[in-house]
Amino acid sequence: MTGVIIDARINEYTSRDPNPNVPWSPEEIGEAARACREAGASIVHYHARDPETGAPSSAPELYAAAAREIRARCDVLIMPTLGAGQIPDLDDRFGHIEVMAKHARSRADLVPLDFATTNLPMLVTELDGGPALVGDDLYYLNSVGMLKELARRTRAAGAVPMAACWNVSSLRLLSAFLATGVFDEPCYAELFCTEGGLLAGHPGTRAGLEAFLACLPEGRSVCWAIACYGANALPLAELAIERGGHVALGLGDYAYPELGDGRPTNADVVAAVAERARAAGRGVATPEEVRAILRA
Amino acid sequence: MTGVIIDARINEYTSRDPNPNVPWSPEEIGEAARACREAGASIVHYHARDPETGAPSSAPELYAAAAREIRARCDVLIMPTLGAGQIPDLDDRFGHIEVMAKHARSRADLVPLDFATTNLPMLVTELDGGPALVGDDLYYLNSVGMLKELARRTRAAGAVPMAACWNVSSLRLLSAFLATGVFDEPCYAELFCTEGGLLAGHPGTRAGLEAFLACLPEGRSVCWAIACYGANALPLAELAIERGGHVALGLGDYAYPELGDGRPTNADVVAAVAERARAAGRGVATPEEVRAILRA
Repeated sequence: MTGVIIDARINEYTSRDPNPNVPWSPEEIGEAARACREAGASIVHYHARDPETGAPSSAPELYAAAAREIRARCDVLIMPTLGAGQIPDLDDRFGHIEVMAKHARSRADLVPLDFATTNLPMLVTELDGGPALVGDDLYYLNSVGMLKELARRTRAAGAVPMAACWNVSSLRLLSAFLATGVFDEPCYAELFCTEGGLLAGHPGTRAGLEAFLACLPEGRSVCWAIACYGANALPLAELAIERGGHVALGLGDYAYPELGDGRPTNADVVAAVAERARAAGRGVATPEEVRAILRA
Repeated sequence: MTGVIIDARINEYTSRDPNPNVPWSPEEIGEAARACREAGASIVHYHARDPETGAPSSAPELYAAAAREIRARCDVLIMPTLGAGQIPDLDDRFGHIEVMAKHARSRADLVPLDFATTNLPMLVTELDGGPALVGDDLYYLNSVGMLKELARRTRAAGAVPMAACWNVSSLRLLSAFLATGVFDEPCYAELFCTEGGLLAGHPGTRAGLEAFLACLPEGRSVCWAIACYGANALPLAELAIERGGHVALGLGDYAYPELGDGRPTNADVVAAVAERARAAGRGVATPEEVRAILRA
């Protein structure tokens, strides 16, 4: 069994309350990446943020600057988001990746594609008057044609597409993309559990993970990692490590008050996974090993 | 353990090739329902079809006429489709249910709501030149707000909403609908496996069913049935019967060349489930029992 690939999901669009260690500026992202690499991460996933306010940004220059800051410090694989939210236009979703591809120092190694057209319901339970289901009109469109086109553009930008899987329907689409050459083998896929009221992914429980694993593409070479938005991913990480899988986690998904002094850094979270990977006798994969596996 | 609820899915938009026993006209639908009821079905699910050509129809009068033909012959619960396909307008999706509700003889008992906004990819394997993935632009929109509104209209039409679940994300939405009173308990849900190249549901395998069952709404009263489009559902039916579940199947989903002379009727397919239900010591639920459970 190979070493555990750790993808450090360092910031998403998360606030610094309650954990102030969420990186915003390109320099902060570069520093977080360096520390995560030292702790055992081989991939870093980031969103561009306004350096002063932390507001979500889609500025290609911020994406490229963050990649340069990372690459100046370490050899980790770089996976910026497509920042899709509900952006319908592929040029708007993908433009920053093409800008990044103009220079080797800022090129993306991996690009995450969301393998689902799906509603985005959110169950809010902290309200007076009982739980409420919000997000009536929210849905996220990633048609099969859009995903084919994003995979093509990803390759054209010198990067490797990653399959972000939200449910079993996503895994079946991945299987078909492997059968028809839209994706190459071995491929890298992240299996998304969602907690904290977000209902679009699988529950962040053993059952939620097992439901994914029961339906992995048969006879295909897929490096799968668990991810868990909105809850502590370490129990799932232990299961994934046991089962030959990999782990994607970080302060972008959850503040990890359980670790250290209650305000851990991204590197502290990565270190907690690396410790479990070593305890299980697998150790962690190096970026060089991941590049060799994925030809990234 | 209660008797097995059998939902006879008698026609969908299926052709009469290879099995000519697919009912089209209201009279044929009524006769198929009567025979299915005798064989052990307690629910009949149908689509309106042009009586001569079998072409899909959305004519409210054909829906109402079929309900009258069924009710004149037997006491089975009536569940017409919403025939949604990709119809975006709720009035167009739901209008026939409201026309049916004007008279007791044609009223629907159950109305199926599709609990998913999802792509509809189809893997075609019988081509020269290898497999191809088609349906690039096809997706099916059922936003949370649309589903809330359809549930409200279903009740207003004197019927009970049924949750058609395509994946684990659907089950989580169902759980939230139960927590927030959009659906009542006990509720009835069908878990859709899809074969024959359609990739939107779970695979029609033990693993596909187990992945659903691992994530049923916790602490909620859900009568779940398996359904399998595009393949023989009987192996899944046996599993469901073993596990306390129910069964939805019929010639609308699959031609069942494995049964009898190779061209069974819907009632023959229902009888094959009823036989398994009796062998497992559960027997079948009567329509009266199902009405009592679901208050339909």
